Amino acid sequence: MKKKVAIVGSSGYSGEELVGLLLRHPHVDLVAVTSRQNAGQTLAQIFPKFASHPKSKALRFAEPNAELLAKQADVVFLALPHGVAAEYAVPLLQGGCMVIDLSADFRLKSAEIYKEFYAHDHPAPDLLATSVYGLPEIHRDQIKQATLIASPGCYPTSILLPTIPLVKAKLVNPHSIIADSLSGVSGAGRKAEPDYLFVECHESVRPYGVPKHRHLSEIEEQLSLAAGTKITIQFTPHLIPANRGILTTLYLAPTEHFADAAGAARLGEKIAACYRASYGHEPFVRLLEGQALPDTKNVVGTNVIEIGWRLDPRTGRLIVMSAEDNLVKGASGQAVQSMNILCGFAETAGFM
Amino acid sequence: MKKKVAIVGSSGYSGEELVGLLLRHPHVDLVAVTSRQNAGQTLAQIFPKFASHPKSKALRFAEPNAELLAKQADVVFLALPHGVAAEYAVPLLQGGCMVIDLSADFRLKSAEIYKEFYAHDHPAPDLLATSVYGLPEIHRDQIKQATLIASPGCYPTSILLPTIPLVKAKLVNPHSIIADSLSGVSGAGRKAEPDYLFVECHESVRPYGVPKHRHLSEIEEQLSLAAGTKITIQFTPHLIPANRGILTTLYLAPTEHFADAAGAARLGEKIAACYRASYGHEPFVRLLEGQALPDTKNVVGTNVIEIGWRLDPRTGRLIVMSAEDNLVKGASGQAVQSMNILCGFAETAGFM
Amino acid sequence: MKKKVAIVGSSGYSGEELVGLLLRHPHVDLVAVTSRQNAGQTLAQIFPKFASHPKSKALRFAEPNAELLAKQADVVFLALPHGVAAEYAVPLLQGGCMVIDLSADFRLKSAEIYKEFYAHDHPAPDLLATSVYGLPEIHRDQIKQATLIASPGCYPTSILLPTIPLVKAKLVNPHSIIADSLSGVSGAGRKAEPDYLFVECHESVRPYGVPKHRHLSEIEEQLSLAAGTKITIQFTPHLIPANRGILTTLYLAPTEHFADAAGAARLGEKIAACYRASYGHEPFVRLLEGQALPDTKNVVGTNVIEIGWRLDPRTGRLIVMSAEDNLVKGASGQAVQSMNILCGFAETAGFM
Amino acid sequence: MKKKVAIVGSSGYSGEELVGLLLRHPHVDLVAVTSRQNAGQTLAQIFPKFASHPKSKALRFAEPNAELLAKQADVVFLALPHGVAAEYAVPLLQGGCMVIDLSADFRLKSAEIYKEFYAHDHPAPDLLATSVYGLPEIHRDQIKQATLIASPGCYPTSILLPTIPLVKAKLVNPHSIIADSLSGVSGAGRKAEPDYLFVECHESVRPYGVPKHRHLSEIEEQLSLAAGTKITIQFTPHLIPANRGILTTLYLAPTEHFADAAGAARLGEKIAACYRASYGHEPFVRLLEGQALPDTKNVVGTNVIEIGWRLDPRTGRLIVMSAEDNLVKGASGQAVQSMNILCGFAETAGFM
Repeated sequence: MKKKVAIVGSSGYSGEELVGLLLRHPHVDLVAVTSRQNAGQTLAQIFPKFASHPKSKALRFAEPNAELLAKQADVVFLALPHGVAAEYAVPLLQGGCMVIDLSADFRLKSAEIYKEFYAHDHPAPDLLATSVYGLPEIHRDQIKQATLIASPGCYPTSILLPTIPLVKAKLVNPHSIIADSLSGVSGAGRKAEPDYLFVECHESVRPYGVPKHRHLSEIEEQLSLAAGTKITIQFTPHLIPANRGILTTLYLAPTEHFADAAGAARLGEKIAACYRASYGHEPFVRLLEGQALPDTKNVVGTNVIEIGWRLDPRTGRLIVMSAEDNLVKGASGQAVQSMNILCGFAETAGFM
Repeated sequence: MKKKVAIVGSSGYSGEELVGLLLRHPHVDLVAVTSRQNAGQTLAQIFPKFASHPKSKALRFAEPNAELLAKQADVVFLALPHGVAAEYAVPLLQGGCMVIDLSADFRLKSAEIYKEFYAHDHPAPDLLATSVYGLPEIHRDQIKQATLIASPGCYPTSILLPTIPLVKAKLVNPHSIIADSLSGVSGAGRKAEPDYLFVECHESVRPYGVPKHRHLSEIEEQLSLAAGTKITIQFTPHLIPANRGILTTLYLAPTEHFADAAGAARLGEKIAACYRASYGHEPFVRLLEGQALPDTKNVVGTNVIEIGWRLDPRTGRLIVMSAEDNLVKGASGQAVQSMNILCGFAETAGFM
Repeated sequence: MKKKVAIVGSSGYSGEELVGLLLRHPHVDLVAVTSRQNAGQTLAQIFPKFASHPKSKALRFAEPNAELLAKQADVVFLALPHGVAAEYAVPLLQGGCMVIDLSADFRLKSAEIYKEFYAHDHPAPDLLATSVYGLPEIHRDQIKQATLIASPGCYPTSILLPTIPLVKAKLVNPHSIIADSLSGVSGAGRKAEPDYLFVECHESVRPYGVPKHRHLSEIEEQLSLAAGTKITIQFTPHLIPANRGILTTLYLAPTEHFADAAGAARLGEKIAACYRASYGHEPFVRLLEGQALPDTKNVVGTNVIEIGWRLDPRTGRLIVMSAEDNLVKGASGQAVQSMNILCGFAETAGFM
Repeated sequence: MKKKVAIVGSSGYSGEELVGLLLRHPHVDLVAVTSRQNAGQTLAQIFPKFASHPKSKALRFAEPNAELLAKQADVVFLALPHGVAAEYAVPLLQGGCMVIDLSADFRLKSAEIYKEFYAHDHPAPDLLATSVYGLPEIHRDQIKQATLIASPGCYPTSILLPTIPLVKAKLVNPHSIIADSLSGVSGAGRKAEPDYLFVECHESVRPYGVPKHRHLSEIEEQLSLAAGTKITIQFTPHLIPANRGILTTLYLAPTEHFADAAGAARLGEKIAACYRASYGHEPFVRLLEGQALPDTKNVVGTNVIEIGWRLDPRTGRLIVMSAEDNLVKGASGQAVQSMNILCGFAETAGFM
């Protein structure tokens, strides 16, 4: 028996990616997609690249209607701007659906921090206590029991997966973290703004949102949880002329001092062991070995995050680098991974 | 009276850029270009984009011959791989030429550090004492007197210009510097290697040379000179799918503590004053104001470096960002700027 | 029971794409991959993007050995340069394998035309009589019976599928065909040549191989077969700064005259009917409707070819446009489609 | 004495390019720039890449005011959408200015054809008789005498310069012309529309405006003038993932029959002689020789158009290919070239 799934707000890049993943998924049946701007049109008309899928000509975008969706679907994905998702989450949960939200609305435990970073009151603060942060490699057990999953942001995934094991194992000082991230332009969404025009992005590399990007709120809350103490980090996002992919370079201070190759080798064994213990059996984490360093082209189109690292005996620092597809492991793929856990499917179902 | 100039090794990207700059320069006459692989061919044949310049069909690449060049030219630019430049510099200097070297051969004062980073003995260690590091905004007076100028590397320029004034003014801890740099692919040179094929770079973002890139040697030597103490820094280069441009993000620890907006404002005034005093009248340094952040597309094709910065009261750090064209301010433009100083031309001659 | 498949020559872009398609295919077991340059290494080492597939760490590249392969595999794909494939095809066929060749070696019926276009004698002319041109939409019945399939080139696929139905139906004059094609850089293969460096291709658009590209030989042979008369066409390929995709624009002279909207409408119905009859049920041909025109981004990563067309009453011409992924429908996807037919699998098995 | 020049509507890509060209021009003084949306801001604020020019911080965008401009400037450039330019041209001409219009408003002699292609009545039909089509290589003598110059479109320039000499010399049948053009995305202007977002253009190649693009009107009028008979052509524009550049491939039927290499050689001499006679001394036309074919990367940033050609003895056709920078020779550079002629400057003044 296939699960019935629906997507609310499926006209952006994450929504489109989600449509593709769910159309191909062997254990679910995509029964509804909603979009105000595309209402009445078929999937094939709006997303020509899915036009060869049998369902694309039959399934039409509908006006979003939470009550109707609650009757149609077992699991509903929300791919909406922050501040809007709550309005659907409440009635869908009441209607008995499992909800997987790709927005920022339920990622924080604190409504105050939400207000600080998103500049408006949280629309459904009561739900913050029950929502689960949908990073499967960290919160798999909670995801299994959840009814409301807040799927993580793209930058947070690229930063949290490489750092949480090190922080938990106290191998690095959690107060020292610097994250320098490079994102393809799809991360900005399908917004018709001059900044994201082809000519403005091609042959351009630029930082933005310095020094206080919204994603800091969820990164710091999750890191604080892992460290058992309040963590503040440095984070600089950059826009890169690629469609997809996030490459994050992390600068970390190991708790163990080293100043030569021998010291680096000793500490390196502990780091390698920590990562192996945390992710050695994870299907979507690829720990790089030998000379390999992460490269977005090796993960684009997949739900995999690559992690590589180097110790620098000249400075005593640990450099950790990760690469992921911002629309897959950084958004829709991770949401489907959570759905697989929630529904009891194989965690890799629907990913080839 | 125009100065006669020549270029040795003009088949790479820096050499090509240099040809263009010198063809357009109002006060020089390009009298010779050499290239083993292109010997006998005209500039127009090898560089079609200069084919409309009157000189391009007359000037042919010659086999490099230092004695002949010494008779032909007043100033000779060397655009050769490291380890090879010295072989030309010695006879050219003896022949009475002024030499501007774009390779790494004469950038360091220490032949030992050269050997550590370049893995071979320095080919002409005696010249290290007399060569001048050609960063005009820092060493203009020495450049005026020089006969051998070692023009800086692309990454070093993007890191040194933003940091040296702060280090000299003791506004930042010089031992704290982290430089995260993103470079367009022309920085790798015109090398027919698989890593730099279009398909391998397009839709790819990747770090490389972690943690000990060769450019660290000159960066650290120049910073140590500015700080009056030995400095080691953290540096991570990344390859970005653009032809040109380097964007560097620097993470610095101010010597003055601040933890709120008021403290940031006070320190910010000192930083702004420091940069204004250092670069306020520099024709090729653009200090960004207001909301503006550096963007490579604003400097590509120019000899300008953009510098912007932000203080982060949450972390107490200073983030400085710079953007330059790696082939112009990061290589050939800077070499021409040094030539202008050396020859007593207006420093902006030949640009714009 | 899964079929056992092998790939000879799997280090190029088509070979890599084929590895991915066969790893994901539900009815085959990839038992061997060969590559002289990568012998001894695992799939995971050479193609990091497949490193998360369970088989990628077990399967190692072997030196190519036709006798051994004939024992290991039921179906062998050859992804080799032209002139080399024959050397493997002969022993593999003798050993009882089915062979699917992605090179140009067995696409022509005439060894003379092969020599004219490829500048060397055909290495196994006897096989030309039995090989089948693997364009499933045109030669499906022959493919079912074949032992040696010559999978078509990328440009030919983009030209033949849109034109053959019109030529067969005598709706266009087959002697009038002009094909203007635009290809992403992966079409040039993974060759470390200066022309295909990132910097030489990015911000560059250029024709090449004008006026006699090798692919003309197979295009004209197939069109001649369809027309029942010897056809010569005009074909201009261009290199475009994209990784993947071919967009072909065809200029055709309809046999029926029209000079106004009414005439265009009448003829348009015949053209639409012709395409519907030919491709209306084809899973990998998408006939565009309404205002839609082909766009490579809608087919990249899929085995689909998009076809759109317009009649121009001002000139009396028919413009047909197609878009495909040069590495999938233009190479490896089509080869797998042929394998599906040959082995009696669902034709869409392993896609989507 | 420098000429005083102004630009009306300088916020688009052509306007920006024009600002750069006029700031660098040795014989003109840019006295005014207008833009409704940018009024009050400096050039440096809107176009950071010009921020190092001394004038960029002094010159502010003004609201457009034709009467005021007529007092300020000798020459006024209009970089406005079609339909709007006329409203400024009339008072500026009355005020004694020379006007160079980059829009389509004054390119046609026929107000009817204007209405057919632009879907509104011509706003100032009386001026059509006096305006001069600003293609210097064809209409240089008329440009010298003009007061109103209609600078050609980007596609028309890339098609007309290669074809007019052949049509005038009756070397090709003017009724046979097919023009297949590929344009970088800046040709679409700085429009915040989804079709021109980075993600929608990168890794996309697509035709558009098939079969009746607006530029056909001026192309056909100019070709008809050259041929002495009414000409209709086939024209297909395509959007290519590059910032700049147009590559046009033309398919032409020579009037002289040839079917072998000897015939091609004979005809080839006539074609070469025709092009040499027409363009051998033109500073901005580069006739390619030997194996060279046009490549947009060789002309981007210059006012040069490259022209190459091949005769195909297999089909009897002539293939002519051209490359230009759509914003320079295809727009603002050509307008400045016309200004140079009009003002009696060296025609190459301001270009390198």
